[in-house]
Parts: sequence; C-alpha cells; structure tokens
Amino acid sequence: MKNFNYYAPTQVVFGRDTESKVAELVKKYGGKKVLVHYGGQSAIKSGLLAKVEKLLGEAGIDYVMLGGVKPNPRLSMVRKGIELCKQEGVDFLLAVGGGSVIDSCKAISSGRFYEGDVWTLYEHKDHATQYLPIGCILTIPAAGSEMSDGSVITNDEVEGWLKKDYCVNEFRCKFAIMNPELTFTLPAWQTACGITDMMMHTMERYFSKDDDMETTDAIAEAVLRTCMTEGHKVMQNPTDYTSRANIMWAGTLAHNDLTGCGTTGDWATHMIEHELSGMFDVSHGAGLASVWGSWARYCREENMPRFARFAHNVMGIDTNSMTDLEAAEAGIQAMEKFFASIGMPTNIHTLIGKEVTEQQMVEMADKCTNGDTLIIGGLKPLKKADIVKIYEMAK
Amino acid sequence: MKNFNYYAPTQVVFGRDTESKVAELVKKYGGKKVLVHYGGQSAIKSGLLAKVEKLLGEAGIDYVMLGGVKPNPRLSMVRKGIELCKQEGVDFLLAVGGGSVIDSCKAISSGRFYEGDVWTLYEHKDHATQYLPIGCILTIPAAGSEMSDGSVITNDEVEGWLKKDYCVNEFRCKFAIMNPELTFTLPAWQTACGITDMMMHTMERYFSKDDDMETTDAIAEAVLRTCMTEGHKVMQNPTDYTSRANIMWAGTLAHNDLTGCGTTGDWATHMIEHELSGMFDVSHGAGLASVWGSWARYCREENMPRFARFAHNVMGIDTNSMTDLEAAEAGIQAMEKFFASIGMPTNIHTLIGKEVTEQQMVEMADKCTNGDTLIIGGLKPLKKADIVKIYEMAK
Repeated sequence: MKNFNYYAPTQVVFGRDTESKVAELVKKYGGKKVLVHYGGQSAIKSGLLAKVEKLLGEAGIDYVMLGGVKPNPRLSMVRKGIELCKQEGVDFLLAVGGGSVIDSCKAISSGRFYEGDVWTLYEHKDHATQYLPIGCILTIPAAGSEMSDGSVITNDEVEGWLKKDYCVNEFRCKFAIMNPELTFTLPAWQTACGITDMMMHTMERYFSKDDDMETTDAIAEAVLRTCMTEGHKVMQNPTDYTSRANIMWAGTLAHNDLTGCGTTGDWATHMIEHELSGMFDVSHGAGLASVWGSWARYCREENMPRFARFAHNVMGIDTNSMTDLEAAEAGIQAMEKFFASIGMPTNIHTLIGKEVTEQQMVEMADKCTNGDTLIIGGLKPLKKADIVKIYEMAK
Repeated sequence: MKNFNYYAPTQVVFGRDTESKVAELVKKYGGKKVLVHYGGQSAIKSGLLAKVEKLLGEAGIDYVMLGGVKPNPRLSMVRKGIELCKQEGVDFLLAVGGGSVIDSCKAISSGRFYEGDVWTLYEHKDHATQYLPIGCILTIPAAGSEMSDGSVITNDEVEGWLKKDYCVNEFRCKFAIMNPELTFTLPAWQTACGITDMMMHTMERYFSKDDDMETTDAIAEAVLRTCMTEGHKVMQNPTDYTSRANIMWAGTLAHNDLTGCGTTGDWATHMIEHELSGMFDVSHGAGLASVWGSWARYCREENMPRFARFAHNVMGIDTNSMTDLEAAEAGIQAMEKFFASIGMPTNIHTLIGKEVTEQQMVEMADKCTNGDTLIIGGLKPLKKADIVKIYEMAK
C-alpha cells in the first residue's frame, strides 16, 4: 500500500430541507459578504435561489448574485467573478449548482487575491497563497467537487479552447449542503452523465498497478455496485428519494479521495475526455463513457488480474472458468452495457453525432500530451501515439 | 435515509516512516509547547518516543512528557494532564499510542480551560467552550479515536468505577500519523481485540431498523469483510505490512462516522460492554466479542432481514434456501466463529475467567441504564431487565 495523505475536512449537511441551514453555515464559517454563484434557469425556477436570498437576507448577511455559469465552466466567467469580489468586498463564496458552479467558485477563490493572471495557476506555473472560503448547495451529483480539492476550468479565450485543472486543499468546501430532493428534477441525460462521472472517479483510482490495498478496493467496489443498482432505480423513478440520496452520497465519496487511499490511480480516461469536451463541448460524463472501454482494452494487459477482479466483484460475473483476459473482456463489455442501459454513448460517433476526423484525433492527442511532451496514465504510460490509437478504437 | 452530518476533518498521514513528519505537522497546526502523552513501555522500547523527542527538539518545539496512561484510561491521569498543561503553558496535545492515550488527551483538551470539574462534561451536564488542539501518532488500530469525535474515560475515583463518554467535534484530531510498521510488535491479543473493536464500530452502525442507505451498507460490509480477511492474515503474520496497513486503515474508517451515514445505529453492545470492562477491567474488544452474539439473538427479531443480509453479504453464507431466522442465526454463529478464530471470548465466563454472579449482572445492568432510567439501543430499545437477560445469555 502506497503512503498517502487523506484530508477531507468539508462539513457535509445531508438530507431533506438542509438548504434551510445555509445562513447558519455561512455565518459559522465567517461569511459576512457572500457571492452567490449559480448556473442557469433551474435554480431560479425551482425557487432554490429565492430561498437562499431570503435566508441570507433574514440572517443579515449581505450578498451579491452572479449567474450564468455554463457546463465546462469558462475562464471568462471566472474573471467576472474575481472582479465582482474585488468591487464588492466579498469574503465568502456560495456555489448553488453542480460541479461547474463549484469549480467556477474555486477558480474565483484562487484568483481573488492572486496578483498574476488566474490562468497561470491552472497552467501549474504558480501557486496562490490566499483563498476565499467556499460553501455549496449541491444540485447535481456528478463531479464530486463538493468535497474534492480540484477545479477544472475551460479557457475560452484561446483558439480551440483549453481545459485545465488546479488542485489545492484550500479548494475543499467548508460545507456542502446536499438535499437529494433538489435533484428530483434533473433530466435523465444529466442524471446518467452524473452516474458515469462518479463511477469513473472511482475507476480511475481503482485501475492501477497496485494490488495491496484491500480496504480501499473493497470500498471502491461497494461504491461502484451501488452506483449501478441505485442508478438503475433512479433512471426509472427520478423522484425516488432513497435512490437519489444513495447516488448523491456515492458521488461525493467517489471523489473525496476515499476510493484512492494507497493507490497510484490512472486518470488517463479523464485526460483523454477533457480534450473531447474541450473540442466538442459535450457532457463530461458522456465523454468518459464513450472512451473508457477503448482505454480499458488498450491498457488492461498491464494488470489483467485487476480487470478480472473487477468483472467478478463489481459486475457480478461468474469468472471461475474464464482466463483473466476473458474475464477482463467480459467485465468491460458489462460496463459498456451498463453505460448504454442508462443512455450513455460508448463511442465517439454516438457522443458527438458525427465522425471524428483523423486530424481532430491527432490534435486532441497533441493537446492532451502538451505536444507529446507529457506522458499520461498511471496504469499504462501513454504517449501521443497511444492516445491517437485509443481515440481510433473509440471512434 | 436519515438526514446526517458528516464531518471528519482530520489530516491522515499514512504509511511508512510518516512519524518523521511529526514536528512539521505540530507546527502546521500551531503547536509551540506540546504535551507528549503516552502509555507504558512499548513506545519507549520501540524508540518511537525518543524519535518524537528528537524531532520536536530539532524543530525548536518545546515539550513536556506525561506517560502512564492505562487501558480504560483513568480520570485521575486526566487531572494530572490538565494540571501539567496549566503549569507549563501547553498549547498542543500529542498522543503517542492507541485509543486510550488519545481519549486521555481528548479529556485533557476539554478540561484545560473548563472552569468546572472535567467529569461534569462526561456526565453530559455541561459543554466546554474552549479546547486544546490534538494530534496523534497511532500505534494500536482499534478504537478509531484518531478520527472520531468521542472519548471514553473511566472514573477511578468512585467506588466500582464508572465509564462515560463525551463526544464533540473539537475532539477530532488535527492530524493522525499512521505508520503500520509501528503495529508490528503488537501482541496477538491486542491485535485481535483491535480487530473486534473496529468490526463492532461498524456493526453498531449497521444493525439498525433502517434499510434505505445502500451506499453506507455496502461500504460497511466492505470494511467488515476486509477486517476478517486481512485480520486472519495479520494474526498469522504480524509483520506483514500490507495486512497491517489494511487493518489500520479499516479501523479508522470504521469509526470516523463513514459507516453510519444515514443510519440511526444501535450501540447497545458498547454500552453493555462498558460495564464489563468497568467492573472487571478487561479489554474492550474482548468484552464486545463476549456479548455481541447474545445481544444479536436477543434483538434480531426487530430487523431479521438485515441479519440475513449480513449473513450473506458479510459472512459469505449461501442463504438462498434459508428462512431469515435461519440465515440470521447462521450469520451470528459465523461471526462468533470468526471471533473465536482470532482468540476472542464469546461468553463472559471465558472473558473474565470465572462465573459472573447474578448480583454483578444486575449491578451492571443498573449502571448501564442509570438505575433503569435510561433506555439503550437503536435497534431494540433495552431496559434494565432486558440487559440482565442479555448478560445471562452471554454468561
């Protein structure tokens, strides 16, 4: 088992009507002037934003609003947020939404006191030393950003756009309010993308060369099985509180580092996907589903017994009479079948609705490896040429 | 799924040689004058204490030492610690040891600034408002105190002694250093008691009336299975790093509230056992093993399907052709068989080496329910008469 640090200090306030505690929690963590950051119409229509405004107002907490965060959150919006925080003397960020809104808040948090350009941080060229505290009311279980240290931002100011992450413990939310009822109205597509994203957060950590962290493996397998059983239920009955709650909590645990304690992890699928959603502005979860099977077939030889174990322990396949390769393939197929069963694409053509060109694949692989200078993936180290092959297998 | 709060902010620093980071971590969390609190000879013999002193000294951190904490940590030692902290101007507590040492530190932390008698807090008659921060170097995986909010102290100043707990978030350690190598020399008995304790922390949360928290259940079952498979390995080979590491991490997760998110839990077995270790000064883990089966048989009718599920998912029993009662009984027997296989007693006679008298059972049940004024247990509410029956079944 590899040495590890585990640090997940976010106070999770989970369950029915927990958004009523928002003012109390903002106060507890020192917020006096809040930026309420959100996405589009759904938080307005549901009445959630009005409720938040009312509660903050009644508690005498001053606030400003900033809406309009889009999926694959944009650098241009982050800049707006930073300016607003400076102008208004904001001392606390409240994200009301899903991972995109939380990630946008995180970027604003890091840029607020940073003297250089905030994008420098996402280019991993510098570290900020002071951050604004963040809290969130989660409305989309998927990205796990509510308890993670990471933020992914899309630079919409450069040609072809660029998607980059920045990870620091200061990005961990002070609190995360999670009311499963707030997810009842999520469209099926977004629900399915979320389920895929949380499963992939677990699988990215699970598929490594290590085989000596049984505690972590057993928990990861438990999370994955739960995502599938509860995921099927929630797709059939979107207002089933119990399944929504189980999925919501699984999504947080999938990405607060619990499922990776003592492993090296892989993360190639995420990086391969980031280029897809960067180029085609598709949903992250769907992008992951479209390439994972191809990644798995390309890399499985590095630890075939682990893929065989996955087939048995996660996908419930009787692998007794199979070779490791047969079991691995059966497990991958079963996973793809699950993705398809919740409406996810398992190839790029279905994802983007057209054929991806050779030139696009090469361009994405080039960006993914920073011009073939970076090697990605913890299971099998992948260069640009490998990634082109994976895109081709997945096309 | 019940609404819940989940808050586990401790920074876990896990793996080989992590104790070398102790001075850096004490500094990070603001310690300038440290009380190093420990138990008996083992931390001295192993060289761990000398290493800690050397590291603190080299980092220019002032410290005082206080050893002699006993299992079932005593109020009299807590008072000594509080006095020492006041005299020496201690601003940080470092526990070097297992749950007893950490719990003693927690009590000192709560009593340091409290104007009344610290025992008042453990009697749940008041709350302290200011606490000393705590860090730990864990050497015994068992109690889970390194990440929990609880502390259990034995009042050795009253006749027959009294064991009470006090739980506040301020008791969560700032950091927990966990090096599995430091557990290599643990005697088999202590290792087995630890495995039992961590399994019971999970089972106390698992056996409830609730049946709608699949995410939590699946994780709890994963932790329990891991405790058994890795537990067997570690009993056979005490210096197997991988098994020691898996057991150590499982023990922390078993009691940082993760295995109880959304459940009501039970906790009767712990309360029934506290009277045993209070009266006979036996090991907590062994005490739990001695009464759990009897508790389970007495209470299972309240949620038989859950006991049947436990038999299948945790104990790996093919329950297909069984009634729920048959499956439940098979699961309980299998659990008792596991306890016995690692040398744990499964009745009170084996635990204390003599017969427990009727009068002693009544006295323990009386204390346990505060003179039949308290009802204990989340699964089946138990009064004094019920607890006497459970002691009788277990005698």
